Amino acid sequence: MTEAAVAFEVLARCGAARRGRLATPHGVIETPAFMPVGTLGAVKGLAPQALEDLGAEVMLANLYHLSLRPGVEVIAELGGIHRFTAWERPILTDSGGYQVFSLAHRNRIDDGGVTFKSHLDGARVRFTPERVVAMQARLGVDVAMVLDECPPWPVDETTATEAWRRTLGWAESALAEAARVRPAGGPRGAAGEGGDGGDGGEALPWRGALFGIAQGSTFEDLRLQAAAELSALPFDGFAIGGVSVGEPGELRRAVVEWTAPALPADRPRYLMGVGKPDDLVGAVARGIDMFDCVLPTRSGRTGQAFTRRGALNLRNARHQGDPRPLDPDCACPSCADFSRAYLHHLFRCEEMLGPVLLSAHNLHYYQELMAGLRAAIADGRLGDMAERFARDQAAGDLPPLD
Amino acid sequence: MTEAAVAFEVLARCGAARRGRLATPHGVIETPAFMPVGTLGAVKGLAPQALEDLGAEVMLANLYHLSLRPGVEVIAELGGIHRFTAWERPILTDSGGYQVFSLAHRNRIDDGGVTFKSHLDGARVRFTPERVVAMQARLGVDVAMVLDECPPWPVDETTATEAWRRTLGWAESALAEAARVRPAGGPRGAAGEGGDGGDGGEALPWRGALFGIAQGSTFEDLRLQAAAELSALPFDGFAIGGVSVGEPGELRRAVVEWTAPALPADRPRYLMGVGKPDDLVGAVARGIDMFDCVLPTRSGRTGQAFTRRGALNLRNARHQGDPRPLDPDCACPSCADFSRAYLHHLFRCEEMLGPVLLSAHNLHYYQELMAGLRAAIADGRLGDMAERFARDQAAGDLPPLD
Repeated sequence: MTEAAVAFEVLARCGAARRGRLATPHGVIETPAFMPVGTLGAVKGLAPQALEDLGAEVMLANLYHLSLRPGVEVIAELGGIHRFTAWERPILTDSGGYQVFSLAHRNRIDDGGVTFKSHLDGARVRFTPERVVAMQARLGVDVAMVLDECPPWPVDETTATEAWRRTLGWAESALAEAARVRPAGGPRGAAGEGGDGGDGGEALPWRGALFGIAQGSTFEDLRLQAAAELSALPFDGFAIGGVSVGEPGELRRAVVEWTAPALPADRPRYLMGVGKPDDLVGAVARGIDMFDCVLPTRSGRTGQAFTRRGALNLRNARHQGDPRPLDPDCACPSCADFSRAYLHHLFRCEEMLGPVLLSAHNLHYYQELMAGLRAAIADGRLGDMAERFARDQAAGDLPPLD
Repeated sequence: MTEAAVAFEVLARCGAARRGRLATPHGVIETPAFMPVGTLGAVKGLAPQALEDLGAEVMLANLYHLSLRPGVEVIAELGGIHRFTAWERPILTDSGGYQVFSLAHRNRIDDGGVTFKSHLDGARVRFTPERVVAMQARLGVDVAMVLDECPPWPVDETTATEAWRRTLGWAESALAEAARVRPAGGPRGAAGEGGDGGDGGEALPWRGALFGIAQGSTFEDLRLQAAAELSALPFDGFAIGGVSVGEPGELRRAVVEWTAPALPADRPRYLMGVGKPDDLVGAVARGIDMFDCVLPTRSGRTGQAFTRRGALNLRNARHQGDPRPLDPDCACPSCADFSRAYLHHLFRCEEMLGPVLLSAHNLHYYQELMAGLRAAIADGRLGDMAERFARDQAAGDLPPLD
């Protein structure tokens, strides 16, 4: 038997929601958790120390993008992805399955895997379920994702079923590859050096987790079938993929509603690519433990801020002379030090500091939201918190100045 | 008599070089000093706390740009430029004189001042020597610069002489305006609330310094005349303007050589817009006390790094697999945490974190260089330091990896 150095513990429940703890080779992730997105091994504009100060415990990166630049072997030779990025906490990598969707015009799928035509130079890049696990092991990630086929939305049921059949086969191949690259008999749950190559880039045995991904588009029967079939496999965690691909919010919520309870209760559940603050609150209530989304940083770069009172855009001229902080209830450095007027000025002048400060604020807001959800579950008062959240969001922004 | 709350003290000399201390309403500037450039009230990509951590004691901003966006009154109403930017240490603003040069096609000069056609919306903006002082006082800056006419290079001597005649007249008008807006009889050298409007934007009396600017292009006689005429006026400090406008390095050095000794020995001397590390070392040896330049941040955004061993470009493919820090002798966070390979990756992928990290490194290098110069002057060993600096710079980058 082969083992990952990961363990998931459910500390408390509140309805379907869970307050948990995922131990990984690079430390513990308190769940429900939000993972900032560092596609290329860097969260845009924020150094690892800043991320850590904002409360992030895990960063997401992307295997497809890293495999093209700088290349998996370059990172492995440099001692692994943690040393490369200087982010010493857990790292989860997406497998490239999302790029099957987002770069659909640049890839061809067959039963053995996906062939991409690189979006950079057109070079042919072959992703198989085995190679995807091997590459993530070589990077030394804490959580690897299986290769999956993420269909677009809308899609017909036959195509979605076909994609799921392929993804399920790939899941089995991925598990076999993980069994091959992981050390035998290691203590499950022990944090250790797993995956972090030492000096000189010699890879230690990989002890990261491998998560399966359930697909099925927005077809209830297919989602239930996929969840059941995937749950029969010995993954360390289970993701819901194929959402945030253009479907309406009510269908996205329905997918979570159908799928989450059908996934193993003793493993973490990860809702990929979601989402807005109210998506997170709703999905946590339905039993989701992990999230990632580009929204806080992407919005931060365009001037959109998330606050307890809803979203606002700092480019709006009404902020021009406003001496108040973006969010008077926020303890992040951007709110402690700067006025809306100054942030507005930075965006109006396209000063790089604007995106930096606002990405930091938004990530801080997301981390605080997750901390609040964790505390509410532990206290058995998630319903109250969700109500308060909805009320605050609906209240809207601060009243205008006189 | 009217007073600024500034005082300059020369603590030590080494040849023509001076180790000094400039006390301002927002704190002390140890000289020789390098001022990071925050044209619009923000150093690109770096928050005030980061700047302070890098050792900066004073920031430069630009009156012309701030007067257009967000406007002097907006900043004044928000409590002044320190509160607006959250940079609580000294701030010096350039007057717009440099834009007489850099936006030559957008302005018209007459004896009374400069009329700009805004580079943003074409609006007519009138800068007079009096208004320029009044606006800087309203911002609450620690050091205000007079309006000057910065001619292009090359320029004929008649035009340069005419520009200087006008600039000298403006200098007298600026002093008269400063006398009008400053409080009478305040204690010279006392730090205080000067210029920082309190809550609600009510301006306190301005106690900042006013610096004159000597021009004269690259004509020795005119430079000497300008220095002598300006030195007869009661400025708190004296700047050498009209350099870094395209002239060859040897002429720039000659201008400093002619002008610096002709300026008052008991006041700070500021060489505007200069420069490269070797420019700084050379100008300090000639008696310059203050510098500003966009080079560390602008270069940082394009991948050029300054190190003890000279400049290097991180975009170069030779850094791709290099696990070494940018500068093994550097204590900045960018060098402590990240490899050349990672920095190369960030620039190759156009990740915002690259410019952020490299701007921080470059500013740290500049601040360390100035600290080294200050220590060398105090120790009476500036010559040794300058020799070591030149030797190290000539040594070139680290040898390639095997």
